[in-house]
Amino acid sequence: MSSTAPLASPPTRPIPGAAPGTGRRLLDAIRATLPGLRLLTDETDRESYRKDETPYLATGLPLGVVLPETTAEVSAVMRLAHEHRVAVVPRGAGTGLSGGAAGIEGALTIAFTRMNRILEIDRENMVVVTQPGIINADLKRHVAQHGLFYPPDPASYEMCSIGGNLGTNAGGLCCVKYGQTRDWVLGLEVVLADGTVIRTGGRNIKDVAGFALTHLFVGSQGTLGLWTEATLRLRPTPPPRATLLAFFPTLEASGKAVAGMTAAGIQPVTLELLDQFTIRAVDDMHGLGLDRDAAAMLLIESDLPAAAADAELDEAVRVCESVGATLVVRAADATEGDWLRQARRLAYQALERIGTVKMEDIGVPRSRVPEMLVRIEEVVKRYGVRCGTFGHAGDGNLHPNLVFERDDPRADEITEGVKDELYRAAIELGGTVTAEHGIGSSRREYLELQRGADAVGVMRSIKAALDPLGILNPGKMFLLEGERSV
Amino acid sequence: MSSTAPLASPPTRPIPGAAPGTGRRLLDAIRATLPGLRLLTDETDRESYRKDETPYLATGLPLGVVLPETTAEVSAVMRLAHEHRVAVVPRGAGTGLSGGAAGIEGALTIAFTRMNRILEIDRENMVVVTQPGIINADLKRHVAQHGLFYPPDPASYEMCSIGGNLGTNAGGLCCVKYGQTRDWVLGLEVVLADGTVIRTGGRNIKDVAGFALTHLFVGSQGTLGLWTEATLRLRPTPPPRATLLAFFPTLEASGKAVAGMTAAGIQPVTLELLDQFTIRAVDDMHGLGLDRDAAAMLLIESDLPAAAADAELDEAVRVCESVGATLVVRAADATEGDWLRQARRLAYQALERIGTVKMEDIGVPRSRVPEMLVRIEEVVKRYGVRCGTFGHAGDGNLHPNLVFERDDPRADEITEGVKDELYRAAIELGGTVTAEHGIGSSRREYLELQRGADAVGVMRSIKAALDPLGILNPGKMFLLEGERSV
Repeated sequence: MSSTAPLASPPTRPIPGAAPGTGRRLLDAIRATLPGLRLLTDETDRESYRKDETPYLATGLPLGVVLPETTAEVSAVMRLAHEHRVAVVPRGAGTGLSGGAAGIEGALTIAFTRMNRILEIDRENMVVVTQPGIINADLKRHVAQHGLFYPPDPASYEMCSIGGNLGTNAGGLCCVKYGQTRDWVLGLEVVLADGTVIRTGGRNIKDVAGFALTHLFVGSQGTLGLWTEATLRLRPTPPPRATLLAFFPTLEASGKAVAGMTAAGIQPVTLELLDQFTIRAVDDMHGLGLDRDAAAMLLIESDLPAAAADAELDEAVRVCESVGATLVVRAADATEGDWLRQARRLAYQALERIGTVKMEDIGVPRSRVPEMLVRIEEVVKRYGVRCGTFGHAGDGNLHPNLVFERDDPRADEITEGVKDELYRAAIELGGTVTAEHGIGSSRREYLELQRGADAVGVMRSIKAALDPLGILNPGKMFLLEGERSV
Repeated sequence: MSSTAPLASPPTRPIPGAAPGTGRRLLDAIRATLPGLRLLTDETDRESYRKDETPYLATGLPLGVVLPETTAEVSAVMRLAHEHRVAVVPRGAGTGLSGGAAGIEGALTIAFTRMNRILEIDRENMVVVTQPGIINADLKRHVAQHGLFYPPDPASYEMCSIGGNLGTNAGGLCCVKYGQTRDWVLGLEVVLADGTVIRTGGRNIKDVAGFALTHLFVGSQGTLGLWTEATLRLRPTPPPRATLLAFFPTLEASGKAVAGMTAAGIQPVTLELLDQFTIRAVDDMHGLGLDRDAAAMLLIESDLPAAAADAELDEAVRVCESVGATLVVRAADATEGDWLRQARRLAYQALERIGTVKMEDIGVPRSRVPEMLVRIEEVVKRYGVRCGTFGHAGDGNLHPNLVFERDDPRADEITEGVKDELYRAAIELGGTVTAEHGIGSSRREYLELQRGADAVGVMRSIKAALDPLGILNPGKMFLLEGERSV
């Protein structure tokens, strides 16, 4: 982690009406009102809530950390924070990659770790009602016992929480087939900035009564309200996956294979790309015997019933070979498939063994993947920095990872330069600066560049309508009037 | 159509700052600023824009009707309406069933009929960029020429416009498998209340930069902005459908069949229910030889490849027979299937041959369909009114249709009584007062009952943030402070 000047940082802004010493008084009020609530105020404890997983990010030391167990506690805390004009930062498992859960100096962090219970599995309607603190993989395991499947699977699914997933509208490997988190949310319980509790949605598949508040809250990174309960759609557990690896002589060929599969109407459940640098890092870590000379590898999976899966992968092989794949290998069985998929999930960790990694999260329309890969190569070459690119190529989402020596003094400068060029290139190709990690505080400066000032103006006006004091995770997503970076 | 007192009506409220004669001045300003814009001011012309397809609804005579052809024209009109403090009503094809496009006395109607061009079909990314005025079926036909498929298919798809579909987040027959309109929208161009033009989303499958404005605008019935362009997702054309009819001795048995298919993980592309009254009306109209003694019929379809479709329908037959289906018939071929599906689509028209029809649009969690069917039977029996119920049973969406003699003087009173009881029953079962038709002005009084005052308060605050003067389709969705029914 760099120790130089912060590259992107949470803001400070005096909350309107806040007086000096207001933080101390809030803590006293919480103790008095909610004596049973776990409240951390020791500096060492607070320090551990300063960061999320976003590298190169300036963060603040929380005033205190509360760990509520019920909606009523969250509501009471928000009422007090609102009354005392103190900002709050909601936090799931802290695995975010955009600074969404990073601490803000003088703000109260509300950690949802203890609100991790599944409240109901409704087999008939195929929904699960859950508290937000549950780990994604735990939820998956629970519902699997009922023959049910919750698709969204961020690479960090063994560590990240559902609440955090809701915050960023998290994606993952299988969203090429099954969509992102928002597509699986039917309803929420939300605590508003002043402590009011509302419900959105429900268990209805179709429901057009009023504005789409559920959809709006998902992806808002805790800037509009705090979700204390979620009703999630499930589907029957699909068959075990059939897995295919395809190796290509150039990145562009792999991009063409992705486009070819889209055009052919193939809907694999996984369609992941790894470039040579990543292939080698993964192979070094796991000794899988991958083709280290290939420029790119695709991991392609089908979860159709056995015969249909074979047919789908046959078609994928045909497409890959038609664009020049040099080697195509099928996993012998589901276990080998699981192992290969797990290796892909750990690509980030494989890169981290080499150095300090700065992961980006670019998305482009699927047809522009080959161009975007060329642009990435060109930019990182110009900056002379090592880069491993992998990602969810099937939906145009690429993660270029810059890899630095741990004490490289130029890391910050290069990271910023490369980021700026890649973001502008993505936008130029009709893409996005963040496909699944969120704007948070780390990409704040690029939101207007992508969306335009007027569209961001609409977002700001919605923020002001729901949180007039600006106490909900301030400086995440965008700065409000009067806010400034630290 | 009844001639008695209005049962639900658009509101009037002085727009803040509006002076007497402001409507006349707006029309003059439009003529002066946009001489090429088609503007209707004759009373006979304006009369034809008074109503949509919602029966028993008080409506207003528009001040004038503009038919823009470009985004620039819509933007200019909104700038002028904003300046002159005149309300506007956006209108697609006028087929809505909640009064969303119904005229408001003294307001300007903006009809999107002439903005009906497809701007681009992007085969590689499988998206279509279109103006909002295009008819749903025309869009389907255009993209089909490129081997592509736009799923949302309201029963009125031959008449309704994409813009109107966006307004209500329209559903249809195949949304049990493919979701509603919102699920197929990647981006919008939106003209705001003051004429500002913004863009939301784009062509990226995954994109989490900022709030989900696209999702929020869809379903807002023109109360937050006017969409002038939409980027819609497409998918490859699926195989022709295999079609099955199953007849049941009780409504409850058909409900159990639906629940059984959900539980078995069957994902038919159509799962439609018709009750006995509707079966007979449809059979009278089309002479299909349906089982007129059955209490209920399900229309079940698969669009999987041939062998898989057979397997899916075999499984559906097994479920239907296990809950007591008395007769199961497969369509001989796709043409016969098309014919049966078309007969279902025309169920409303079949009922209209018998009398004046008031259609409702209740949704319940799928497991509650049998209970809701019993409640409907019980309520309409008590009121002594004829009722044909059909609907998208696979996603819990039921359309009870009250059928009155054309001059029944008690029609209004009964309609209101039955509606109130059915809405309360649906909400009691965790359902919704509208699954796909929208709140509009006809269900406004029930929004708070379903969502709670605080959740509607959030919606109102979003409305106020985006449309501070309240000029966008006022009184649709909810009343603002100071607004009242006529």
